[in-house]
Amino acid sequence: MRRLSRGGIDSRVTTELTELFEILRFASISTESKHSGEVRACAEWLSAKLRGMGLDTSLHETARHPVVLAKNRHVPGRRTVLIYGHYDVQPVDPLELWQSDPFAPVIRDGKIWARGATDNKGQLMAHVLGVAKTLREQGDLPVNLTFLFEGEEEIGSPNLGPFLATHRDELRCDVIAISDTGMVAPGVPTFGYGLRGIACCELIVRGPKGDLHSGIFGGAVANPLSALAKIVAGFHDPAGRVLVPGFYDDVIPLASWERDMWAKLPGVDDASYLALCGSPALFGEEGYSAAERTWARPTAEVNGLGGGYQGEGSKTVLPAEGFVKLSFRLVPDQDPQDIMAKVRRHIESQVLPGVTVEFVPGHDGKPYVTDPNSAFGLAAQRALRDAFQADPVLIREGGSIPIVQTFRDTLGADTLLLGLALADAQVHAPNENFPVENFEAGIRLNQSLLRELSL
Amino acid sequence: MRRLSRGGIDSRVTTELTELFEILRFASISTESKHSGEVRACAEWLSAKLRGMGLDTSLHETARHPVVLAKNRHVPGRRTVLIYGHYDVQPVDPLELWQSDPFAPVIRDGKIWARGATDNKGQLMAHVLGVAKTLREQGDLPVNLTFLFEGEEEIGSPNLGPFLATHRDELRCDVIAISDTGMVAPGVPTFGYGLRGIACCELIVRGPKGDLHSGIFGGAVANPLSALAKIVAGFHDPAGRVLVPGFYDDVIPLASWERDMWAKLPGVDDASYLALCGSPALFGEEGYSAAERTWARPTAEVNGLGGGYQGEGSKTVLPAEGFVKLSFRLVPDQDPQDIMAKVRRHIESQVLPGVTVEFVPGHDGKPYVTDPNSAFGLAAQRALRDAFQADPVLIREGGSIPIVQTFRDTLGADTLLLGLALADAQVHAPNENFPVENFEAGIRLNQSLLRELSL
Repeated sequence: MRRLSRGGIDSRVTTELTELFEILRFASISTESKHSGEVRACAEWLSAKLRGMGLDTSLHETARHPVVLAKNRHVPGRRTVLIYGHYDVQPVDPLELWQSDPFAPVIRDGKIWARGATDNKGQLMAHVLGVAKTLREQGDLPVNLTFLFEGEEEIGSPNLGPFLATHRDELRCDVIAISDTGMVAPGVPTFGYGLRGIACCELIVRGPKGDLHSGIFGGAVANPLSALAKIVAGFHDPAGRVLVPGFYDDVIPLASWERDMWAKLPGVDDASYLALCGSPALFGEEGYSAAERTWARPTAEVNGLGGGYQGEGSKTVLPAEGFVKLSFRLVPDQDPQDIMAKVRRHIESQVLPGVTVEFVPGHDGKPYVTDPNSAFGLAAQRALRDAFQADPVLIREGGSIPIVQTFRDTLGADTLLLGLALADAQVHAPNENFPVENFEAGIRLNQSLLRELSL
Repeated sequence: MRRLSRGGIDSRVTTELTELFEILRFASISTESKHSGEVRACAEWLSAKLRGMGLDTSLHETARHPVVLAKNRHVPGRRTVLIYGHYDVQPVDPLELWQSDPFAPVIRDGKIWARGATDNKGQLMAHVLGVAKTLREQGDLPVNLTFLFEGEEEIGSPNLGPFLATHRDELRCDVIAISDTGMVAPGVPTFGYGLRGIACCELIVRGPKGDLHSGIFGGAVANPLSALAKIVAGFHDPAGRVLVPGFYDDVIPLASWERDMWAKLPGVDDASYLALCGSPALFGEEGYSAAERTWARPTAEVNGLGGGYQGEGSKTVLPAEGFVKLSFRLVPDQDPQDIMAKVRRHIESQVLPGVTVEFVPGHDGKPYVTDPNSAFGLAAQRALRDAFQADPVLIREGGSIPIVQTFRDTLGADTLLLGLALADAQVHAPNENFPVENFEAGIRLNQSLLRELSL
């Protein structure tokens, strides 16, 4: 508790950290069926917390994990703000690489260490506790507020779109705010005006009806793992450009004002990216910086693959099958369904004789971009300046929050991305963490944001 | 016990099956350290069995798993025959695909089902029990016999070469016999005059220092799984020919008498291979039949690969590393060390910027070929005819028994390959099996063989 032992954190923050720790203890991993009880328990804890703050709170069933809604008393004539977050988290494997239990949060070196610390429970709770503080201090909020928290963001929000459609009136708002994106550097408030989209799929490559002896059959039968490797290798040219025919057809080129602006940002130069990832070198599409490659260029990525003997030593088997999990990050104006159809055609053109390929579509979401200098955009920038006492920078994001485009389509409102995640937060990886000072700043940011949006 | 309930098997065979079942119950998996106690227990059971038959038996420690030696009283002037076998077995995963416990042998449909039933405990015990029967019936054997049984065949016999070198005098012999190869079809006695060699390695491809979020970093960093797939895909041209430079330099072309002979064999036509493997189609080097591809052409095979997210659903991770396990089957006159050096150079030429590749060499063994019509070869063919009451056929083998070349180099003796394995025996795979009638024939074959070799 080194950070807490210093003088700068008052007892209220300690209480707020205690509440954050409570929600971090739920193993609310949405993709793994065995954890669905923990996902529900987390939703119920969150409902109770919001209800305890005096908000009109409801827990809504979906086909899988519940949605939590909470509102103050909405007064005609005030601005209506929807704050979205997600209480589900990514899986934790490989568990052995965590320095402490992912669901037993601890503070080390001024950071909170736990799965979900940054993505998204830490940022979600900063909004919740900012609202609690304003309510304590002023008895009311300056805006009509709706909290919308889901438990399926990490699996692509399959039930949130239908929920929005059936609760459209209840969710009507002027603007939406989300803290689930990145800051370019510690202490540099960061306003996001774009997101990459995503399209996921899994391939299962099958050859012989069962595992074969590689001596007895090797040479006469296609090896499903070789066939799988050929498909995966066929996605990129040697310089890292995606080879799927038509993949770049709808990509809007980077504007020169964006390239100029990004080139001056702290913390997102190529050397910083290289230091963060720890690879021997950066690698990617020619002619773009690392920030440009990740914020404004699409990708084809292998998230996992496997097949054949996985144990110690060797086993001379010619395996019956293998799998590969793929995701494609998309930029405006690529369409996920169109890209997935192109990917599928491309895969079919790469299949070796002697194997079959099963294509299993996964979740998807459209890319997003908005004008950072709209009235709401400027209000968000003022709130960021106020919370951090520093000028905000403007970026796009490499990650995907597909629901942002769905909000625009269904509710007719744009989204302000006020992220508090640092590049070394280890989201989706072992040792996820969130600086205590970002948690505190997030609470301040919520208070400033609701004030600025009310003007 | 359907097969046993019929009239054809006398009580002696039932006793012999009981003894085979005893050795099959040991989980003597040599590659997995956790099973080393079972490997040793199996060696000790075998020693006790041989000692009980009146043979001069000894168990020899090596750096890993013991060697078992057993001899009758060697009389000057008689032929000396060494019979080699191995009591270790392959791993059993994927365990869920076995119809019965791999180490709880059962008889179904006239076959013995267990890991090691064919490879090699069933064939080894046929020799042991053939000798026991001759000793019971005649009080002595017609030859000087040495049984040499090792526990490391499935991991490439790393300690048997040194053992042969230090026990050269004790192991001196005129000829060697092994039953650890295939029969072309049920009831067709098969004499093997060649084996493929092998060279194994594992590659570990590393990129970022830890798993990364594929949204935040994807596009700017090489994905180790894409780099791995590129290496694997780089081993073959689209028609399945190996692309490693110099790979085919030392390959002796198939002789026309071999091609003519093999084209007439039962059970090894392309349609039979296809039916056995159950793939959608055969696939391999142009211009060769399946038998030619597997018996006389070299391969590059992926035995296993893995990396990134392995669980249910999706996880949008850019993983830190991946692995691939490779083996190369070799034919005369390819040299495993030379091939491995060429493979390594080839891999190094295929490495993407932004990753490193660790090369972990595995076991290897030279390919082997001998004259099927030598005096000993003709004796072996007579023994096969006698045991099966049918004319033997002559083949080479796709599998590898590297020690055969080491026998020739160290002991100066050639090896007779008198295999009893059927193509659907599922060796190295789930549901390994061995027909009871092959076990019985193996016992007869041992008796005929020692008699024919004594003449």
